[in-house]
Amino acid sequence: MQSEVITVRTGSSPAVRDITGEVERFLREAGADSGLAHVFVPHATAGVALIETGAGSDDDLLTALDDVLPTDGRWRHRHGSPGHGRDHVLPAFVAPHASIPVIDGRLALGTWQSVCLVDTNGDNPTRQVRLSFLPA
Amino acid sequence: MQSEVITVRTGSSPAVRDITGEVERFLREAGADSGLAHVFVPHATAGVALIETGAGSDDDLLTALDDVLPTDGRWRHRHGSPGHGRDHVLPAFVAPHASIPVIDGRLALGTWQSVCLVDTNGDNPTRQVRLSFLPA
Amino acid sequence: MQSEVITVRTGSSPAVRDITGEVERFLREAGADSGLAHVFVPHATAGVALIETGAGSDDDLLTALDDVLPTDGRWRHRHGSPGHGRDHVLPAFVAPHASIPVIDGRLALGTWQSVCLVDTNGDNPTRQVRLSFLPA
Repeated sequence: MQSEVITVRTGSSPAVRDITGEVERFLREAGADSGLAHVFVPHATAGVALIETGAGSDDDLLTALDDVLPTDGRWRHRHGSPGHGRDHVLPAFVAPHASIPVIDGRLALGTWQSVCLVDTNGDNPTRQVRLSFLPA
Repeated sequence: MQSEVITVRTGSSPAVRDITGEVERFLREAGADSGLAHVFVPHATAGVALIETGAGSDDDLLTALDDVLPTDGRWRHRHGSPGHGRDHVLPAFVAPHASIPVIDGRLALGTWQSVCLVDTNGDNPTRQVRLSFLPA
Repeated sequence: MQSEVITVRTGSSPAVRDITGEVERFLREAGADSGLAHVFVPHATAGVALIETGAGSDDDLLTALDDVLPTDGRWRHRHGSPGHGRDHVLPAFVAPHASIPVIDGRLALGTWQSVCLVDTNGDNPTRQVRLSFLPA
């Protein structure tokens, strides 16, 4: 299987990073034809989402996550910054894996879809993402 | 890879549409044996869920989404109908991709599981769904 | 496709069960090299999450689910125990499928990631999980 680990800088605040270009580059360099692109985050406090970026929805997602998983003292997980326990619940809702059809070497995304790394954990400013291609 | 795009009518209100029959028809016509069925929605305001239909849970899901992602003025995304910004956050929680094992040509779903298109966006009455089969 | 169904005891209360060891055993016995591990729950009231276990986050997830999907009378689905309707919405948020890259026979999980069965439904004390391997 063609597979590669990239590093993404997410910084010290909650962040949504558009990595669509990196996935496209990977597929190009892998000489991908048709099959499945797989995006995997090997971290316990981050996820992958396919959403629109650049029109406010990336910030809207972080706001929604603040509402669903508040950064307060309710969490039993007590390591890291105060409220960090919520980052460990994130991947149950925003899973750390996504798969996208690849047709003739190109991601079959819709016009407004981007592949995004979602990282609410400010304690880890850089993240790894594993990109893989399964030919079919 | 065997792959096909179907059109699903979701109407002008939030909707959950059971497309299990369409996925089964696709697998049959593709001559699928064993592998992975992949369901992908190429839209930024819809998702795929595997839930029971016909006993109220489809409506329950829409109610839960109204609670988690309210249709109000909180969203930074300002295009479309009022509150439409929440539709753009939906795919982070209800992802636009799902994969299901296929054994001897049949979806290995549980008795009460259906493949459902979840579309809270009333501005797009028809949707596309890409069905693919990866032989293994 | 190499595929196997295992039985997991989840008991009569909401539970998060770490099944990473079972997935690793399956891959070993399947002689898996590189490809995709697929975990699928053929039930309409359970999901799969990749989270850290053993430091409180498994309980935190159940608490967050109680908040997002309360066990009360709001649900239209009326079968089973009171509030059970929320269990049927769970798989829309915590999907019953997960895929994980396998490199040289090993799950490419991060240090703190575990594969977990999430089952809020106390009415079904045992569950099935289908493990599959797609070589690439």
